[in-house]
Amino acid sequence: LLEVLRAAGIEIDAPCGGAGTCGKCKVLITKNVPPPTWADQELLTPEEVLGGVRLACRIRLKHELEVHVFESHEHSLQKAPTFEADGKFNPALRVLTLELEPPSLKDQRSDAERLYAAIEAATEGKWKPRNMTRSLLAKLPRLLRDNEWQVEVVFDYDYVLAVRAPQQDQPICGAAIDIGTTTLAVYTEDMRSGVRMGTAALLNPQRSFGGDVVSRIEVVSKGEASADKLSERVVEGLNKALEESCAACGISPEAIFHVVVVGNPTMTHLFLGLDPTWLAAAPYITVQGDSYCVRAQELGLKVNPEARVFVLPSISAYIGADTVGVILATNMDQGKETALALDIGTNGEMVLVHEGNLWACSTAAGPAFEGANIAQGMRAEAGAISKVRLDDDVYLETIGAQAARGICGSGLLDAVAELVKAGVIEESGRMLSPEEAKAEGLPDNLVERLEETDQGARFRLTPPSAAHQVYLTQRDVREVQLAKSALRAGLEILLQQAQIGYDAVDHVYLAGAFGNYLDQGSAAQIGLIPPELLERVVPVGNAAGAGCELALTESATWGRIARIKRELKYVELSASREFQDLYIEHMMFPEL
Amino acid sequence: LLEVLRAAGIEIDAPCGGAGTCGKCKVLITKNVPPPTWADQELLTPEEVLGGVRLACRIRLKHELEVHVFESHEHSLQKAPTFEADGKFNPALRVLTLELEPPSLKDQRSDAERLYAAIEAATEGKWKPRNMTRSLLAKLPRLLRDNEWQVEVVFDYDYVLAVRAPQQDQPICGAAIDIGTTTLAVYTEDMRSGVRMGTAALLNPQRSFGGDVVSRIEVVSKGEASADKLSERVVEGLNKALEESCAACGISPEAIFHVVVVGNPTMTHLFLGLDPTWLAAAPYITVQGDSYCVRAQELGLKVNPEARVFVLPSISAYIGADTVGVILATNMDQGKETALALDIGTNGEMVLVHEGNLWACSTAAGPAFEGANIAQGMRAEAGAISKVRLDDDVYLETIGAQAARGICGSGLLDAVAELVKAGVIEESGRMLSPEEAKAEGLPDNLVERLEETDQGARFRLTPPSAAHQVYLTQRDVREVQLAKSALRAGLEILLQQAQIGYDAVDHVYLAGAFGNYLDQGSAAQIGLIPPELLERVVPVGNAAGAGCELALTESATWGRIARIKRELKYVELSASREFQDLYIEHMMFPEL
Repeated sequence: LLEVLRAAGIEIDAPCGGAGTCGKCKVLITKNVPPPTWADQELLTPEEVLGGVRLACRIRLKHELEVHVFESHEHSLQKAPTFEADGKFNPALRVLTLELEPPSLKDQRSDAERLYAAIEAATEGKWKPRNMTRSLLAKLPRLLRDNEWQVEVVFDYDYVLAVRAPQQDQPICGAAIDIGTTTLAVYTEDMRSGVRMGTAALLNPQRSFGGDVVSRIEVVSKGEASADKLSERVVEGLNKALEESCAACGISPEAIFHVVVVGNPTMTHLFLGLDPTWLAAAPYITVQGDSYCVRAQELGLKVNPEARVFVLPSISAYIGADTVGVILATNMDQGKETALALDIGTNGEMVLVHEGNLWACSTAAGPAFEGANIAQGMRAEAGAISKVRLDDDVYLETIGAQAARGICGSGLLDAVAELVKAGVIEESGRMLSPEEAKAEGLPDNLVERLEETDQGARFRLTPPSAAHQVYLTQRDVREVQLAKSALRAGLEILLQQAQIGYDAVDHVYLAGAFGNYLDQGSAAQIGLIPPELLERVVPVGNAAGAGCELALTESATWGRIARIKRELKYVELSASREFQDLYIEHMMFPEL
Repeated sequence: LLEVLRAAGIEIDAPCGGAGTCGKCKVLITKNVPPPTWADQELLTPEEVLGGVRLACRIRLKHELEVHVFESHEHSLQKAPTFEADGKFNPALRVLTLELEPPSLKDQRSDAERLYAAIEAATEGKWKPRNMTRSLLAKLPRLLRDNEWQVEVVFDYDYVLAVRAPQQDQPICGAAIDIGTTTLAVYTEDMRSGVRMGTAALLNPQRSFGGDVVSRIEVVSKGEASADKLSERVVEGLNKALEESCAACGISPEAIFHVVVVGNPTMTHLFLGLDPTWLAAAPYITVQGDSYCVRAQELGLKVNPEARVFVLPSISAYIGADTVGVILATNMDQGKETALALDIGTNGEMVLVHEGNLWACSTAAGPAFEGANIAQGMRAEAGAISKVRLDDDVYLETIGAQAARGICGSGLLDAVAELVKAGVIEESGRMLSPEEAKAEGLPDNLVERLEETDQGARFRLTPPSAAHQVYLTQRDVREVQLAKSALRAGLEILLQQAQIGYDAVDHVYLAGAFGNYLDQGSAAQIGLIPPELLERVVPVGNAAGAGCELALTESATWGRIARIKRELKYVELSASREFQDLYIEHMMFPEL
């Protein structure tokens, strides 16, 4: 059924990619309800099962069914206060009104040559485009003559992209696009002023093919859907976001002539319709890693048909254009400082710069903080527990101040940190049983929240009165341990490359929504961030998107991008013995 | 009716483009025969009119008709012995079998980067392609792995065009295409050896839109058909020719990866779907004159879908890629010689090189020699009178030794020259009446061939016994006078540019089929070529096509092409007072 829903373009969450393990692809069957499967009984409440709720991925279609798809929770995508990179506004994309010398028997240059020369003259030789598509060339002679040789021309360094009647008020825009595994973000920029005109964020429609990159890659490598199909889906989503973003500022998507795209390597591969199969298995190889330029039309992206789309380069199978964006936005490649950048999304990507040298590595560490493999984990949406404090009682904060439905990354980090501090979780990560907690002399209000299950203890976060109880389980703690030790070990490996210690690090940039919202104290408490770096942490929000905007609006950025692509040294952790040792070493929580 | 036939893709000659003046678009109507029009009565024989033959361009469709289209005379395109330009074989297009280092955790380069680097290494840095289309990239990872990293790769300086299983015997080809107004010529070359594998020539299917460039331009400028439509038609023809040429040597058109195209500016504009309207009217402007590269797929050309098509540059509205081809083939731009090149097709294009400087001009002189505006003019097809000698009697040669149906360019030139020499045509171009001829004491066998008509005298070329009589009319002589004086005046203008006389000219290259077949003595007799240059004439056949082949097979040619485009000085004759004077001056035939 999930496949049929996917094929019909119905958006449905399936973070596990249809493996029957996440329990998220719920549908209500109202006719010919099939008997519950093992997974239904495991992952749904008895009430749900009785009521006809089933997991779509577990239903093999034999009879006609009547299916009710639950609406996606209206997504309150947290628009992190985007870090504003301090770039100048000097885009490659330009617009000029030109008065051309009409041709004569003494000046018989071709229409195109006349236009090219006028652009070169008007820009004092800084822009020398010498190319037009056939479709624009086909219209050129009439455009020039109908407008009596006075035209508005849109161009970049290589191409003339539009020729039209001179109308000073016609907008010329660009779009910066950040393709996240979960979220698509589109920023529309006015290319005359550099002002950001509109933003839009939507959930990535590819999520019905899996919540993380690995499950999406599997969908393609197992032949369940082609890379082209996944490209179509993300392009559909981007078209919606572009439309929304343009509508908000009253422009037509036709006004967009340049599009710059960032995303992790799986996302940029799938955007371009390239097979990501070999990103997922050792030795982890991209199809192509250079920056890539393609016409919007070729991808079906609904902007101006002549628009050029630039995809920033990938460094390796797990360090992608998004990381390049973070480096650009933070200016790590520019200054003399020693700095770390940490982007905890589905993966954890890390960059270190020291004395102008750049290193990067990536660990499969993130999904826990995005709710994956966490019993009641969820994205940072309305009803997610986002903050936890233990004092005389347990204090919670939920997103949108709504009744708790689950727990998101920052809440998870807090919960573990607070329970470690309180002694409910041991240094080894083991959660005490109610009896042990009592024997240790922990306060009654904590002890009574502990429950024994056949998979270890669990801790009730919500008050007894809550309609829906949210627990932190022993398994959840283990997931956090695995994630944080991987991230921490990655940081240590990067420092080893530069042969420096934490004291040498001037700044730690925390990128991404999670990096923005996590409690730094909690992060230090569990050993994710070394305590000595705490005061040097700078949250930079969606720095990948900010870097993408920079590439769109400041042409000098492209020289930096080429240098980053050339010089950034990727450290492969899966081949590293040291990493394994550090990974095990950091599995424990720090001593109090 | 002509429009309907055109739209249906039925090939029918209409040299005048449907103006009702050439009488060539004959069809037989067998049901609902419309009354004959003025043009039918003027241009068809009474027998034809009675039998139901009509001119398609004169029939306005009101009722259902039954139409029989006469088959084109099987065209015996004279494959002129193509001048073999002495280029080295060093094409930009290459094929190599590469054994790539498989990726490992220590070498995680992308698939594309691995391939690019291997090509660069194998060619010692001479080829550095860094690009592939998305469609090839999408297939790349499987191709590399399925072939265990040993692949055959086809590439040029910019692009990788194919990756496939290593099979040494798979052909790699290129095609040189000469788009003539009348004839399409396709040469297929083996790009491993440089051997020409196949040739094919077809009539240009665009001819139903007019016989010369001006009538084809009018079809577009009047909106009767779009430039795209004319592009489709020529591409259809080229696809047929490519198929034929490939079939002849047993290869698939898929083996063709590079295509180089020459043609006059109208032909290259229409090939690319560009509006040629402004080529035809002062000040005669091309849409774009640079060399232009496009993917075969975009034009619908049936070669390998990844193939690149290169159109050579145009210099002006009437000096096109075909003239650039002539310069390349004759090496005029290379040597130290002083040389003239003369290409008499529908137009007359002329080039002069002197002390390394290049000049060119063009005159609307050719159509007479292609049969246009000549009473019984025809192309050089079976049955065309191609040679005429006056001795004791009139001796004719026809193409294919068939009964004379009409007269082609070389026959026309001979006829006029011989009649001038015999005194039947005066120095002024006036043909004597039978009475005047008799009074002048001309032999009886000539006098009896002269007839008086209300448009001046005419001379019967065919013997009295011939089933079909072919005449040279007073008007035909006037057409020849106009053409030869325009050509001669053009030559004089070029010499003025260089400030030299005919004595300084080392060679006169005569390009094109007509240049190949004309009798040089006759050309001198009527003053088309100055007699002092006679012994320096070198016929070079389809030099435009030979230059096109050179661009395909010798990459160094492209530097020459760029220099020719940059440095060739175009002399616009329509603005020239001197040209007008010389034009009038050379209208007369030389004194005997």
